[in-house]
Amino acid sequence: MSNKMWGGRFESEPAAIMAEINASIDFDQKLYRQDIAASKAHAGMLADQGIISAADAAAIAKGLDAVLAEIEGGTFAFSRALEDIHMNVESRLKTLVGEAAGRLHTARSRNDQVATDFKLFVRDTIDGIDALLADYQQALVEKALAHADTVMPGFTHLQTAQPVTFGHHLLAYVEMAGRDRGRFADARARLNECPLGSAALAGTSFPLDRHKTAAALGFSRPTANSLDAVSDRDFVLETLSAAAIASVHLSRFAEEIVIWTSPLVGFLKLTDAFTTGSSIMPQKRNPDAAELVRAKTGRVCGALTALLMVMKGLPLAYQKDMQEDKEGAMDALAALELSLVAMAGMVRDMTPDTVRMRAAAGSGYATATDLADWLVRVLGMPFRDAHHVTGRIVQAAEKAGVDLSDLPLAAMQAVEPRITAAVFDVLTVDSAVKSRSSYGGTAPDNVRAQAQGWLKRLAGD
Amino acid sequence: MSNKMWGGRFESEPAAIMAEINASIDFDQKLYRQDIAASKAHAGMLADQGIISAADAAAIAKGLDAVLAEIEGGTFAFSRALEDIHMNVESRLKTLVGEAAGRLHTARSRNDQVATDFKLFVRDTIDGIDALLADYQQALVEKALAHADTVMPGFTHLQTAQPVTFGHHLLAYVEMAGRDRGRFADARARLNECPLGSAALAGTSFPLDRHKTAAALGFSRPTANSLDAVSDRDFVLETLSAAAIASVHLSRFAEEIVIWTSPLVGFLKLTDAFTTGSSIMPQKRNPDAAELVRAKTGRVCGALTALLMVMKGLPLAYQKDMQEDKEGAMDALAALELSLVAMAGMVRDMTPDTVRMRAAAGSGYATATDLADWLVRVLGMPFRDAHHVTGRIVQAAEKAGVDLSDLPLAAMQAVEPRITAAVFDVLTVDSAVKSRSSYGGTAPDNVRAQAQGWLKRLAGD
Amino acid sequence: MSNKMWGGRFESEPAAIMAEINASIDFDQKLYRQDIAASKAHAGMLADQGIISAADAAAIAKGLDAVLAEIEGGTFAFSRALEDIHMNVESRLKTLVGEAAGRLHTARSRNDQVATDFKLFVRDTIDGIDALLADYQQALVEKALAHADTVMPGFTHLQTAQPVTFGHHLLAYVEMAGRDRGRFADARARLNECPLGSAALAGTSFPLDRHKTAAALGFSRPTANSLDAVSDRDFVLETLSAAAIASVHLSRFAEEIVIWTSPLVGFLKLTDAFTTGSSIMPQKRNPDAAELVRAKTGRVCGALTALLMVMKGLPLAYQKDMQEDKEGAMDALAALELSLVAMAGMVRDMTPDTVRMRAAAGSGYATATDLADWLVRVLGMPFRDAHHVTGRIVQAAEKAGVDLSDLPLAAMQAVEPRITAAVFDVLTVDSAVKSRSSYGGTAPDNVRAQAQGWLKRLAGD
Amino acid sequence: MSNKMWGGRFESEPAAIMAEINASIDFDQKLYRQDIAASKAHAGMLADQGIISAADAAAIAKGLDAVLAEIEGGTFAFSRALEDIHMNVESRLKTLVGEAAGRLHTARSRNDQVATDFKLFVRDTIDGIDALLADYQQALVEKALAHADTVMPGFTHLQTAQPVTFGHHLLAYVEMAGRDRGRFADARARLNECPLGSAALAGTSFPLDRHKTAAALGFSRPTANSLDAVSDRDFVLETLSAAAIASVHLSRFAEEIVIWTSPLVGFLKLTDAFTTGSSIMPQKRNPDAAELVRAKTGRVCGALTALLMVMKGLPLAYQKDMQEDKEGAMDALAALELSLVAMAGMVRDMTPDTVRMRAAAGSGYATATDLADWLVRVLGMPFRDAHHVTGRIVQAAEKAGVDLSDLPLAAMQAVEPRITAAVFDVLTVDSAVKSRSSYGGTAPDNVRAQAQGWLKRLAGD
Repeated sequence: MSNKMWGGRFESEPAAIMAEINASIDFDQKLYRQDIAASKAHAGMLADQGIISAADAAAIAKGLDAVLAEIEGGTFAFSRALEDIHMNVESRLKTLVGEAAGRLHTARSRNDQVATDFKLFVRDTIDGIDALLADYQQALVEKALAHADTVMPGFTHLQTAQPVTFGHHLLAYVEMAGRDRGRFADARARLNECPLGSAALAGTSFPLDRHKTAAALGFSRPTANSLDAVSDRDFVLETLSAAAIASVHLSRFAEEIVIWTSPLVGFLKLTDAFTTGSSIMPQKRNPDAAELVRAKTGRVCGALTALLMVMKGLPLAYQKDMQEDKEGAMDALAALELSLVAMAGMVRDMTPDTVRMRAAAGSGYATATDLADWLVRVLGMPFRDAHHVTGRIVQAAEKAGVDLSDLPLAAMQAVEPRITAAVFDVLTVDSAVKSRSSYGGTAPDNVRAQAQGWLKRLAGD
Repeated sequence: MSNKMWGGRFESEPAAIMAEINASIDFDQKLYRQDIAASKAHAGMLADQGIISAADAAAIAKGLDAVLAEIEGGTFAFSRALEDIHMNVESRLKTLVGEAAGRLHTARSRNDQVATDFKLFVRDTIDGIDALLADYQQALVEKALAHADTVMPGFTHLQTAQPVTFGHHLLAYVEMAGRDRGRFADARARLNECPLGSAALAGTSFPLDRHKTAAALGFSRPTANSLDAVSDRDFVLETLSAAAIASVHLSRFAEEIVIWTSPLVGFLKLTDAFTTGSSIMPQKRNPDAAELVRAKTGRVCGALTALLMVMKGLPLAYQKDMQEDKEGAMDALAALELSLVAMAGMVRDMTPDTVRMRAAAGSGYATATDLADWLVRVLGMPFRDAHHVTGRIVQAAEKAGVDLSDLPLAAMQAVEPRITAAVFDVLTVDSAVKSRSSYGGTAPDNVRAQAQGWLKRLAGD
Repeated sequence: MSNKMWGGRFESEPAAIMAEINASIDFDQKLYRQDIAASKAHAGMLADQGIISAADAAAIAKGLDAVLAEIEGGTFAFSRALEDIHMNVESRLKTLVGEAAGRLHTARSRNDQVATDFKLFVRDTIDGIDALLADYQQALVEKALAHADTVMPGFTHLQTAQPVTFGHHLLAYVEMAGRDRGRFADARARLNECPLGSAALAGTSFPLDRHKTAAALGFSRPTANSLDAVSDRDFVLETLSAAAIASVHLSRFAEEIVIWTSPLVGFLKLTDAFTTGSSIMPQKRNPDAAELVRAKTGRVCGALTALLMVMKGLPLAYQKDMQEDKEGAMDALAALELSLVAMAGMVRDMTPDTVRMRAAAGSGYATATDLADWLVRVLGMPFRDAHHVTGRIVQAAEKAGVDLSDLPLAAMQAVEPRITAAVFDVLTVDSAVKSRSSYGGTAPDNVRAQAQGWLKRLAGD
Repeated sequence: MSNKMWGGRFESEPAAIMAEINASIDFDQKLYRQDIAASKAHAGMLADQGIISAADAAAIAKGLDAVLAEIEGGTFAFSRALEDIHMNVESRLKTLVGEAAGRLHTARSRNDQVATDFKLFVRDTIDGIDALLADYQQALVEKALAHADTVMPGFTHLQTAQPVTFGHHLLAYVEMAGRDRGRFADARARLNECPLGSAALAGTSFPLDRHKTAAALGFSRPTANSLDAVSDRDFVLETLSAAAIASVHLSRFAEEIVIWTSPLVGFLKLTDAFTTGSSIMPQKRNPDAAELVRAKTGRVCGALTALLMVMKGLPLAYQKDMQEDKEGAMDALAALELSLVAMAGMVRDMTPDTVRMRAAAGSGYATATDLADWLVRVLGMPFRDAHHVTGRIVQAAEKAGVDLSDLPLAAMQAVEPRITAAVFDVLTVDSAVKSRSSYGGTAPDNVRAQAQGWLKRLAGD
């Protein structure tokens, strides 16, 4: 190794390189709580089944509690030589309780142990994410209720299309978060089978009660096939998939925040809490938090891609490749958590500029569809014809330099003589949003009803 | 455009380039059945609600049936100028039924229409995939039942670890496919909300009954937020996620097939149906189908990555970017279908070389764990000590050049005097697999019970 | 197969499924030109080396020309039973020229043949993309030259930061495209080694002159290792990487086009050529082409991900998995070509609203940095102090409701007494852009010089 | 925030959340050396141009050296409140040298500063990777030279195809690594333009000499467009692309190591240095290092996907999203470095089982192609006919239960009477490899010549 830069790190003997690539304790120490809980459940079951003595089980349990206290107290010395969290814990247990520790590993192996630990970790993380999603929904719904009547332009292609309410827009994100929660819940239910007792890959000859261990750890049941149990990383992949979709949702709102807080648009204001300023341009509010939420989507999706690639083409059963399941997933899920907290904070922090929103909603002939629908509803014109007539009236308004609601009736009648003054009732921004009262539509009463329904559901969570 | 090679394709006027990039009819024509079904449901509801006349609805329904017949009969002329399936169908409908056709588009837009069509398409595709997964499971379970007693080496790190049965190994893939079906079923349930009636983005002022349309199309309910309804592509992303994980599962088995059919290993034989031969080396059987199944994982995961990237950072509501949701997804899901058919075929086609499997299972001290467990169970040694003693006995066997079951008792007693002749009962391959009767373990009785349980469940599907 | 929907497609005998998954002729027929060229070069070399007769080589060449004419004339009947382009061509050749055709495959195999064909195809595609990138640069540079003095806001975080010129902004994309061309050129140079003559995987015992074949096909040299030659797909991966980065560049400009053509911003206008209108809202211009260019980034990056995943972990030498290298790559590269044509078209089509741009550039204290720099340059203040003083002056201007150039000198002197009236020379938008004349800066003279430099380079291409 | 698990981390005030998501010092502190070097070059240029005094420049340089010493000595206290490496360094500099520190930031901003720092970091990393690739090549070439005559089966589809030499096989990986080095070198050359002096985004009005700064930092030239300079992350994307392809190459060899060290195959042995054992099964050698190298491909490709997704659709110029360019890239490149060291170590450590390799090479009619080529060369048969005749002879051998070299001449003549005893010269494994002497072929003399050529090139690096 002649390379100076990296040489220092690697010019050690081969064994050192192996330790460098092989040891997982740097990241799997995050599993300490799950590892200890699983060991306690396992030891308890072994004793219940008469495989180890009650005294040994008690010693093990007490010792594991002591290890837990040391780790949480920051006095535990993790060792790379002991490779992973399992060996670090068991080794310390041996020092603390002696021979009984040597009985803990009966009828299990690191293969089923790590699968169990990481499942518990992912399950805990899902629970945390669900709570964060609920809080984000709460923030959105409250803001939506406050802005059920706040009119803004609805966009397609970032072009003004029809007026909507800001509350309606926010509730769209509540729906997305609702589906996200559904996906995480489904992933949680599906992963909730306990691998412990599958041993290295083939099961064991000890008279285990795997149902008991599963129950003790809050699993719905034990896994049904030992080879699958130690080979399966679906629970990580599915959770990352749910996280990827959730982060895409956040990125969409983040993009809108970035655009809407631009001085070019000016729909939203965020305070210093979620922007960075410039001492030189005090009016500047860089929406850093929103940009970072948008960007972290890459990280989450990248972690999913990475693990799909790791798992592709791996023969059964355990392969060391699977050790790569943790770092990326932990990092991605933490990024999602952080993004959710930041987004909930931004929602609570944001103030819409209702004047600019309304003004933008009213420009650009955004009520043209309302005119067309009036022609269909009142005059009985086929939609396609009404569409055509409306286009000609908008052209007239454009030529006259006025919006539809200011175009004289005569000008409309010049295009379609049957139009009456009643048409003006549908051409204002307020009447437009109010009229869209079909289920799911933007009418303020709809928005209020939807928001209140969500509040009830969230309270019941 | 001075480039000769590509010039020919593009040196047309700009409008031609726009058509080239913009038209979707080349791929969205696959939605014709769903598009027509949705239009019929919509027209029926419009008539029920008195928004259009019963006569118009009847004319529309009849016309749409005629269009369907033309498309299925191969006589329909798709037009790029009409851009997409929606306009192609409606335009032809107009020719067939006249003015009534112009009333069909009342209270909807292409935004809610395409979301509805593609949801229906994805739902149909999920149903097809579920059936293929069930058939794949059926093939696996039948083969597993036939090989509940067929001993083979169980691997970790592709090193021989402990004996398992071929049936047990196959059932691991049944479990995976079971989770896959669960994911597709969850995706189906979650997507099953009808966007139709959300119109362009804001809902509509017509007195729709969206619950009726939803029911007519087999949806559980209408979508609750019109902005979300036209912006949402979760249903594609989630389905692709499920497909990606399923294809990873297939790739693992495919990899094993490739390795096991190699003459170096010789565990499996496939017939000509799933291999390609060589006229020059008649003994050669290239496992092309397995290799292609393995490779198609890339295609499916790539499609997921692509759509996550497309959706990232898109403001609400409809953006033209979303048109990119179809081609990749259709291609990826078709690749999964093809892979499932090929894998089910290969499972039915494969013949294990039970002699080579058994021989390999019995080599490499694969019953060392059984010895250790015996020391724990019979002599009451702590597992870690038993592990150590076993290591020394294996070394003795290695030195003597024999497997464990052939090592004289005296040689074992030299390491641990308390060992008795009873130990030999656990040292054969057959006793090893038979003993692993813990829930989920590889014991033949377990395998048979699991397989029969699956057969019952599959029959009940 | 009980599934009705997909059953029709698959309920054929296994052999049909194998054909379905195995045949490549549906997509590799695009290689016909390259396949025929490579065969001609190979046959010529074989004759030169005395391995086949000159008469045979002549018959082969003539026959191949005939096949080429048939394919280009649309009269060639591709056959799935013949699997791929190689067998389709050779089989037809046999019909046309008889026994000589049987000598063509001497000292080669499909493994080196397909590697050669696809390398030639990728090379041709790179040449096409390079020409399209050059044309896109040409469009950008011409527009930049026309707008070297057009002032617009320069953004960071989509917040107005400092004034720049539209020409300068466009030239940023010229730089990106320049690096893209560099990447494609490097990929082309690196792939330009000829695999032909590597045979199945091990080379051959025939006295080939591989240098001659390489030269005949425009390759720089033959590949140096036959195992590598038939296993290597770097040329596809590297070309897709270059395409992915290029498409990310296009997506950034596309995003700007979407934002800038929004009525909320109104910086740019595109004509009907690159937008779709709405018959009902005639003022609406949906920037569909830009949205699709942005979206196609997903497709290109997805294809890269897919092939990386396909190639990961493949043992040497040829594996059938590699057949998956073509469809995704062909589709992705075609998407990039289409995007380049569309973007070049949009650049030529776009008209900036120079009035709105200038107005936006002048708002938001965009010249605050100029004030700070003046304090450093003229008063000798440390930058950090000047930064602080400027902040206080901007606050004064904000309180007074005026921009910096309209703040009375006295108000500035209240903050920093040494400021003189000379400061106003740097506070206008025009002086700001003019002053940034450091190399690479936005000063109009810089922009003109850079643009003219590019025009010269492009003319020399 | 009612969630207990994550609450603790986040229930702080919003500002804390912002710090959590916004601060980069946790990872960008790795840029300290580059940041200090760039500041020294900038200050030196400012003094040379008379923008700051020579005394200030000297004070800054001395202070920066002190900061560097503190960081490398481990006494520097990084502060999250100061956000990033730039502010951490400048703040400490101010404490050390006072007012002069405030002049350092003249004519630059964090936007051009971070682009410069990270380019330097990536450039240094590329240099390190190049050295590691060279060392890996050296290990491969030396081993190849030692095994230029070691015969093994050459595979396609993991089926035995033709005999090759182990040396030839290893040289295939040398070729791949050579292309990898080319890609890194091209990326290095392309990134080697200095952004410093582009300031926030528009350049500056100070009379900089950017060519001087560029030269001082080893850049080839300054960037030509200031907007591009602060927006560009091509250098990370291209480097990650090269890393992704390189890691795919390593994964292929790693896969072979895993298969070949399996007791089923037994072609290779690794020592304890690169395997993990089992105290219970002492003969077991889990190839953990190879498995982890294979798996890390996912991580590298995932980082590429992530950053492509981050950059997609970002408007110019600097966006906070770009801060996500570092962690993933640093992690991925470190993973590649580690993988390269591990692979070079494994190559040096591995011992082929030449007896098993030769035995496997000689089975399976691996010399059938040699027979066919003999028929073409000696009897002048068209290749396709020779292919057919060979197939019939192999069938005869298969029926007789012997390999080709043991089939009596009469049996061959029964198929093709013109065959003579001379044919046996080409039917042994040794004659087969020796005969493949076409350029790039597997003949031992070729392998030796190639290996020696590489040794010379590597010595000249």
